[in-house]
Amino acid sequence: MPGGVAPPVFTLAEIVARLGGEVWGDVHTVIARAGSLQNATSGDIAFLANPRYRKYLRTTAASAVIVAPALSDELPPGLSAILTPGPYAYYARAATLLHPRRRMPPGIHATAVVESAFPESVYVGPGAHVATNVILGERVEIHANAVIGSGVRIGPDSVVHPNAVIYPECRIGARAIIHSGAVIGADGFGFAPDFTADGAGAWQKIPQIGRVTVGDDVEIGANTSIDRGALEDTVIGDGVKLDNQIQIGHNCVIGAHTVIAGCVGIAGSARIGHHSAIGGAGMILGHLTIAPHTEISPGTMVMKSLSREGEKYTAIYPLARHEAWRRNAAHLKHLDDLVRRVAILEKKISETNPED
Amino acid sequence: MPGGVAPPVFTLAEIVARLGGEVWGDVHTVIARAGSLQNATSGDIAFLANPRYRKYLRTTAASAVIVAPALSDELPPGLSAILTPGPYAYYARAATLLHPRRRMPPGIHATAVVESAFPESVYVGPGAHVATNVILGERVEIHANAVIGSGVRIGPDSVVHPNAVIYPECRIGARAIIHSGAVIGADGFGFAPDFTADGAGAWQKIPQIGRVTVGDDVEIGANTSIDRGALEDTVIGDGVKLDNQIQIGHNCVIGAHTVIAGCVGIAGSARIGHHSAIGGAGMILGHLTIAPHTEISPGTMVMKSLSREGEKYTAIYPLARHEAWRRNAAHLKHLDDLVRRVAILEKKISETNPED
Amino acid sequence: MPGGVAPPVFTLAEIVARLGGEVWGDVHTVIARAGSLQNATSGDIAFLANPRYRKYLRTTAASAVIVAPALSDELPPGLSAILTPGPYAYYARAATLLHPRRRMPPGIHATAVVESAFPESVYVGPGAHVATNVILGERVEIHANAVIGSGVRIGPDSVVHPNAVIYPECRIGARAIIHSGAVIGADGFGFAPDFTADGAGAWQKIPQIGRVTVGDDVEIGANTSIDRGALEDTVIGDGVKLDNQIQIGHNCVIGAHTVIAGCVGIAGSARIGHHSAIGGAGMILGHLTIAPHTEISPGTMVMKSLSREGEKYTAIYPLARHEAWRRNAAHLKHLDDLVRRVAILEKKISETNPED
Repeated sequence: MPGGVAPPVFTLAEIVARLGGEVWGDVHTVIARAGSLQNATSGDIAFLANPRYRKYLRTTAASAVIVAPALSDELPPGLSAILTPGPYAYYARAATLLHPRRRMPPGIHATAVVESAFPESVYVGPGAHVATNVILGERVEIHANAVIGSGVRIGPDSVVHPNAVIYPECRIGARAIIHSGAVIGADGFGFAPDFTADGAGAWQKIPQIGRVTVGDDVEIGANTSIDRGALEDTVIGDGVKLDNQIQIGHNCVIGAHTVIAGCVGIAGSARIGHHSAIGGAGMILGHLTIAPHTEISPGTMVMKSLSREGEKYTAIYPLARHEAWRRNAAHLKHLDDLVRRVAILEKKISETNPED
Repeated sequence: MPGGVAPPVFTLAEIVARLGGEVWGDVHTVIARAGSLQNATSGDIAFLANPRYRKYLRTTAASAVIVAPALSDELPPGLSAILTPGPYAYYARAATLLHPRRRMPPGIHATAVVESAFPESVYVGPGAHVATNVILGERVEIHANAVIGSGVRIGPDSVVHPNAVIYPECRIGARAIIHSGAVIGADGFGFAPDFTADGAGAWQKIPQIGRVTVGDDVEIGANTSIDRGALEDTVIGDGVKLDNQIQIGHNCVIGAHTVIAGCVGIAGSARIGHHSAIGGAGMILGHLTIAPHTEISPGTMVMKSLSREGEKYTAIYPLARHEAWRRNAAHLKHLDDLVRRVAILEKKISETNPED
Repeated sequence: MPGGVAPPVFTLAEIVARLGGEVWGDVHTVIARAGSLQNATSGDIAFLANPRYRKYLRTTAASAVIVAPALSDELPPGLSAILTPGPYAYYARAATLLHPRRRMPPGIHATAVVESAFPESVYVGPGAHVATNVILGERVEIHANAVIGSGVRIGPDSVVHPNAVIYPECRIGARAIIHSGAVIGADGFGFAPDFTADGAGAWQKIPQIGRVTVGDDVEIGANTSIDRGALEDTVIGDGVKLDNQIQIGHNCVIGAHTVIAGCVGIAGSARIGHHSAIGGAGMILGHLTIAPHTEISPGTMVMKSLSREGEKYTAIYPLARHEAWRRNAAHLKHLDDLVRRVAILEKKISETNPED
């Protein structure tokens, strides 16, 4: 009963009626939950995208699986399926159908402080503060104790989770999900040195008068920070997915559909191409340009612009037991010497064996 | 006068009556504060765990020290002591006696928004929001502007500091300390790519329907994030201590009594064994398994599972002056060539000296 | 009309009357905004600090530029200028004049919970909580849902942005800017191991009874954490600028006018000299001492004390395409062997060519 108190339940026939694909087996199979092949129980629907795991088809307790048509031969008797060329994306949609986001009922909580007028479909939770001149789209949810600065605009169906903060004048698109602790639009890190030769003086703050503009369908993780631009805006493209604990400096431009894993730092004015992927704890220095479809490995620092599309880059120190690391790492500081010693040896050898 | 307005004061006799150990010197020595050997003043109790610092025994202004029995010979006349085989842990307990956590008086602040019923011993601070179906144990403290989602359970004597957020349905054990800005139970970072060959399409969000379950006696630092599981739970074991600015991805399992220093990132579905220690800014890739009692050095990225208990692993690029680094690091990109050149030299030498 | 509803507008004559410098060209030129040479429009004032960009002087649409006197020859006809020996710092001041921080009107919002008495010039926003025995200077702003613990002191003209938290007893100087999500004064990460040989036991928490003391003119970025000291205070010097997502452990001392970029972690009891600069994601291990005027490159881990002033240090693994990285990195684990092989070759060669 979708929309009621109990979570929705669907037959396979109902699922394919909504999402496409073809049922293999019993169209009346009832599905109540998303699950994994290994841990599913009756009522679950799981998926198989990587053929390496096909052995689990024989043992899964799921009521149905989502698989590519080519794998229908491997389905054991009694296991129903939905056949689709993209099982993983289909699974995401089916799971969303089965586990829809819990929406807050419209209305402004009595303890919220709201200084702008909104559509009736908007929810503002306890203790939230929405300042003046804010424009919220239909069905926007501002959860408890979140703070929305003056002049902010947020597109329809966006959700701002508890204790997130959006500084004044920032723009958020439709269907955004902004998790707790995210801070959007704090001042960029801009200071001019103003010291005399004898060290007197101080850093002069440069006003940060740009905004953050976030496209549609963006998710921003917990405790992630995106600074406002110094003069122009910091721009997050459509469909970008940001994990937790990310820092994005002022005037960065993140291309559409780029995914950035947790703990990444992107320094000011970097431009990341669309459809790129940055692994966890990757770092991008400032003012660099990264081509579209670039993949950066986790823990990798990018120190120069990367202009070729579709490449993968890595800079990871290889793990070792501590003692082995210590022995090997010590030589890194003398690598230049080692190279010179090898060059000398080569010269001597060629003198010894002149015919070479 | 423990329990009164002034901080408690104890004689050495009173301390050993509570915590064990043996007094050396004057049992009536009055102790008001914990201190360090070097900076202590009269009324302080300090400790000596590392014999390297024994010289400070002669000069400390502390009123008493906590030392191993073997060091009693080195105590100067007039300096009282508590003798115990574990001076550091004893010091922790004595300091806790002298500086007990300031407890908030029970009661729900008039500005808190509370939608569940609690024991009378619970404290809920100004502006905090506790949603429906929340179960709080005795003496739980929810500080100002913290937000507790519906269905959350928190065990007795736990403290949630200001502006921390616990998403719906998560479980927190007894005696937890959750610091400000911590976010527990935000959505894991799960998206299925759903792009056509010509680049149209988008990432499909996978609902994150697991929870976070946190054991007893866990401390969670400021601005640390722990994501809820995709299907099953993210699990933090008993006695785990998490520092600040940590990111723990969905479906991680952190074994009991493991300590994790600041800025660490642990990607989804990693399993860290019990009694392990991860240094600051260490990174663990997803789906890895780390054996119990493993030590990971600071700044070290772990890219593979580690199955031997009790080992220490490191992956740190050695520090150098910038120019020296530049000279040496350049060769890293040609290490494969260098190895080949050495192999050629070895071959030539062995041809020159065939008797070798 | 400075102070009115519209942003202030100034002629060049009015700007130099306030900030010094010399007008080149038309003193009546009207300036409304700060801009960049490349993107400026009419009414903007831009600056040129790096002579490499002097070509933009010929094409900029700015109404005026700030340049060093030596560059006055290069100003095209019709472009007015302010001549000053320090164009960048001058620009910062001019931009501040043109874009003054929006100040909140004095007053305590009806939904704020305030348990101390303040000057009338103080602003406390909706839902903010200011506990007992707090002392705030003139014109301090505590924004929405921020939480200020008991006994905190904050100097005049400081701003605490929404949802920032300052734990009890901490000290903040004058003119501080504390961004959203910052947490100042949470417990340091201090635990004594208290395990028996068979693994029973737990980590014993050591009470953190020091404070955080922050000097004057400090900026603290979004979601940055500074832990309180264990016994003595954690100290942030005057003029320090901290970016976002930084972790500063207990008992650190950060010297005056040091700048620290985003995602940096500084472990407990580290002492960073004044006027230093730490690049993004740099890490400083605990108990180290870093000399004044030190520069640490981004992503660099500092594992030992650095005693020479004015040096720059780096420890970055060089970026490469993934395959090249894989090939080269594999040899790192055998560098010790390689060095030994080269030494053997050298020995053999010297035996073969004894005259060398």
